[in-house]
Amino acid sequence: MPLLLHYPLDPFSRRMRLALAEYGIAFELGEERPWAPTAALIACNPAATVPVYVEDGGAAVSGIEAMTEYLEETRSERLKLIPGSAAQRAEVRRLAGWFDTKFYAEVSEPVITEKIIRRFMPRETGGGAPDMTRVRYGISRLRDHLDYIGTLADHRSWLAGEDLSIADLAAAAHLSVIDYLGDIPWTEYPVVKAWYQRIKSRPSFRPLLADHVRGMSPPPHYTDLDF
Amino acid sequence: MPLLLHYPLDPFSRRMRLALAEYGIAFELGEERPWAPTAALIACNPAATVPVYVEDGGAAVSGIEAMTEYLEETRSERLKLIPGSAAQRAEVRRLAGWFDTKFYAEVSEPVITEKIIRRFMPRETGGGAPDMTRVRYGISRLRDHLDYIGTLADHRSWLAGEDLSIADLAAAAHLSVIDYLGDIPWTEYPVVKAWYQRIKSRPSFRPLLADHVRGMSPPPHYTDLDF
Repeated sequence: MPLLLHYPLDPFSRRMRLALAEYGIAFELGEERPWAPTAALIACNPAATVPVYVEDGGAAVSGIEAMTEYLEETRSERLKLIPGSAAQRAEVRRLAGWFDTKFYAEVSEPVITEKIIRRFMPRETGGGAPDMTRVRYGISRLRDHLDYIGTLADHRSWLAGEDLSIADLAAAAHLSVIDYLGDIPWTEYPVVKAWYQRIKSRPSFRPLLADHVRGMSPPPHYTDLDF
Repeated sequence: MPLLLHYPLDPFSRRMRLALAEYGIAFELGEERPWAPTAALIACNPAATVPVYVEDGGAAVSGIEAMTEYLEETRSERLKLIPGSAAQRAEVRRLAGWFDTKFYAEVSEPVITEKIIRRFMPRETGGGAPDMTRVRYGISRLRDHLDYIGTLADHRSWLAGEDLSIADLAAAAHLSVIDYLGDIPWTEYPVVKAWYQRIKSRPSFRPLLADHVRGMSPPPHYTDLDF
């Protein structure tokens, strides 16, 4: 069975768990801590980042775009996650890139680093209390992104067009980690909430709702499909 | 004729210029300044980043992976830049992602922001003298990447395997900007230098060697194919 090296509250790992489940691929999970990569992780991925997809035979694929395109090329018989014409596929990839680059830099990276990673890192390598200036910056930028998702979801069935795509999974994966931390003002963004409810109700999302990181409980609405 | 909105010393723009030339696509250039995006750029790309590829009919493609895959899907009759089996294509994309994410964050972003962008930005939006701590950090991390490129180039004809690929263009594009600034210790990395000489000698590279940014002259070896 293929193996996914991951961290439960890493948005890129979550996107791959969603994609694998949507494709209908059975897989095992191997947990890594991004702040203390194991020798096994580094052997599979010299960049020492999660996630890494390890095929049955042991061949490892790393890098979020590389994994995404690899699975679409080899395992998308049942469902395409980069669907449509070349132009529509470009729109899917533009939006996936938006979340993985822009949303990550502006929101996920500061919020997750300060609230999760620095909590578990040893003090001598940078662990400690969160820098709340960086957290507040991330949460303030989150509002621009919620506006943008709302604009997209208001005009389209799914974020990149009429079909579910990796763009929805990328956006939902990033938002789901921020939601675990209780930092999304859902009531102010009803259109975004309606789109997210549709993703959250999919069977692929269930394992993410069951995640529980020691010492960090999500708010009650995190697992609620009618939040 | 298609149009590429770009900035001459932006590594992502340079990668697209190289790719377009390798595919044999004639195109026009429209210059943008990343620190002051025009309304035309924002209309084509809400993320307000360069490069953006604008088709003859006006359809715009943005996002580095989206553009790369779009051109490979629509214009690679003559040459594939993501060649080979699914596994080989994953290796090409892993390495392109390495340079666009890891090399960018550790080297290009600090060095280019401090030495180029802050030089031209108005003082009130963050312009001014470079923060040399960030420049020194970037240059020190550059050495790890030169080691890694050397390891790859020592065992393979090109960085991702036996064929030239977008991984070589991504790496060369990032290095070429640092080289314009005179910050690459070539004599210490003969294997990397030999690989770079091969890329630099390709016709696709010539326009990059002719770039000249006002007030910032490259070192004499920048244009020399026998540096």
